[in-house]
Amino acid sequence: MRALIVSGAPSGASLTARLADDAAATLRTEGHDVDVVRLVEVGWNPVPGPGDYGIEAFTGPLGDAAEGALLAGTLSPEVLRQQALLGAADLLVLVYPLWWYGMPAVLKGWVDRVFTQGFAYGLHDADGQPRKFGDGAFAGKRGLIVTAAGDRESAFTPRGVTGGIDDLLFPVTHGLLWYTGIAPLRPLTLLGVDTPLWEGFDAARSRLRERLVGVWEEEPLPFRRLLEDYDGARVLRADLAPGREGFGAHLR
Amino acid sequence: MRALIVSGAPSGASLTARLADDAAATLRTEGHDVDVVRLVEVGWNPVPGPGDYGIEAFTGPLGDAAEGALLAGTLSPEVLRQQALLGAADLLVLVYPLWWYGMPAVLKGWVDRVFTQGFAYGLHDADGQPRKFGDGAFAGKRGLIVTAAGDRESAFTPRGVTGGIDDLLFPVTHGLLWYTGIAPLRPLTLLGVDTPLWEGFDAARSRLRERLVGVWEEEPLPFRRLLEDYDGARVLRADLAPGREGFGAHLR
Repeated sequence: MRALIVSGAPSGASLTARLADDAAATLRTEGHDVDVVRLVEVGWNPVPGPGDYGIEAFTGPLGDAAEGALLAGTLSPEVLRQQALLGAADLLVLVYPLWWYGMPAVLKGWVDRVFTQGFAYGLHDADGQPRKFGDGAFAGKRGLIVTAAGDRESAFTPRGVTGGIDDLLFPVTHGLLWYTGIAPLRPLTLLGVDTPLWEGFDAARSRLRERLVGVWEEEPLPFRRLLEDYDGARVLRADLAPGREGFGAHLR
Repeated sequence: MRALIVSGAPSGASLTARLADDAAATLRTEGHDVDVVRLVEVGWNPVPGPGDYGIEAFTGPLGDAAEGALLAGTLSPEVLRQQALLGAADLLVLVYPLWWYGMPAVLKGWVDRVFTQGFAYGLHDADGQPRKFGDGAFAGKRGLIVTAAGDRESAFTPRGVTGGIDDLLFPVTHGLLWYTGIAPLRPLTLLGVDTPLWEGFDAARSRLRERLVGVWEEEPLPFRRLLEDYDGARVLRADLAPGREGFGAHLR
C-alpha cells in the first residue's frame, strides 16, 4: 500500500515533525511506500493565486477557475504534484499541532490549494447525484489525523471548556475527509502537550506505531452517507437519531 | 470607536472582498475610525517563522519564543504592526469565505502569527488565575464574523449534513474570540452562495449594514466564563446545562 504523510509542523524540531518522521519509519518498516510532505521545510505557499490555474487574475469563483484549469491542463506543476501524491495514496496522514483549535495555516493552505473543484469535489454519479459525504473522488482511501494540543485533556472532554476534541476535529474528519470519500479513522490526539519535551512523548509514539501497524484493518468512524441518510434538503432523516442535534448525530 | 476589518478574501473581485469594503464604508459613515487589512492584496505571509521572533531557528515551543520576543522587543515589525491595529480596535470584523468549513489559510495565518503568547494568551490575573474564556488580553473588544459558504442553507441547520453553522464557527467565536476576552457577536452568515453574482448579495449587504449600525448595542453571544462556570479541571459544572454535551452547552 502507499501512504502520504503531510506535516504541518512549524519546524523540523517540533514534536509533530518527529511524529511525522516516526509515522514514515513505521509504515516503511511495515513494507509500504511512503511519501512525506513537510510543508514548512519545502516552503509551501498556502495561498491559492491565479497562477495555480494558469490565469492572470481571478474574475469569477476560484472553484470554477480550478475546474477549468484541470480540464485545460493548466493547473500549476506545484498543485499537480501534490494532487498526484494524494491520488496515488491509499492512506492520508495529516500530522499537525492544533493551533486555535484548527490546522496551522500552512496545512490549511495545502488543503485549500490541492483539494480543487473537479479534482476533489463537485463530482456527480451517473444519475447526476452528488458524490460527497461518504462517496467522492477519494473513495477507497483512508485518512488519519494525528494532532497535538496544549490544553489539558479534561478541557477537551464533551463538557470541557474548549469543546470536545471529536467535535473540534469534525470539520476535518467529516467536512474534509468524509466529504471527499476518504474513510476517516479515529483521530490520534495528544492532549496536554505543552512542550516538545512533554513526558508523554514516548507513550504517544507507541500509540502512533500501534495505530499505523493496524491502519488497514481498523474500522473507520461510522459517519452517515448523504444519499442514504439525508433528505433532499441535505438534512438528517427524522427517523435517524431522532431529536438529536450536534455533530455526533452524523455517526451511525 | 475604532474598528479593524481583516479580509481573507481570495481577491479584490470576490464577494467577501466587496463585503469588507462595504463594512468599512458603513462604519466610516457612522463616524468611526476604520483600519482594513486585505490580506491577499498585501501579500500576507501566513506561516510563522523564526524571523517573527528575531531568532535564527526554532529550538523550543513557538509560544515561548513569541513571549520571549515580546519581552525583549524583538518581535518583527510585520507582526507588531498587526498587533498594534488589533490592540487599538474596539471592534474586530473577520470577513472570509468558508473554505472546507474553516478560514482560508491566509486568515488562519493572520491569527497564527498575530495572536502570540504573552500578547493574546497566556495571561494571568493578580491571583494567578488564567485570563481566558470570557476574560483576557482583549476584554472590552467586540468581534464579528462575516462569512459566506456555498452549501445550501438547510445543510447548515442543526441536523444538516455539513453540521450546524453555529457549531462550525465555534472554534472562532469561542476558541479564538471568547478565549482572548473578545465578546463575540452573532456571526453574519451568508449561505448558499455559489457565485459572486449570487442573487442574495444586495440583501446580504443590507443585513451587514444593519448589523454594523447597531454593533455597539447588540447583545454578544452569552458564552460562559471559565472562572465562574467550570470546575478546576476546566469542565462545565454539573449543575449547569445538566447532562448536555456539545458546543451549545457553553452558552448560558
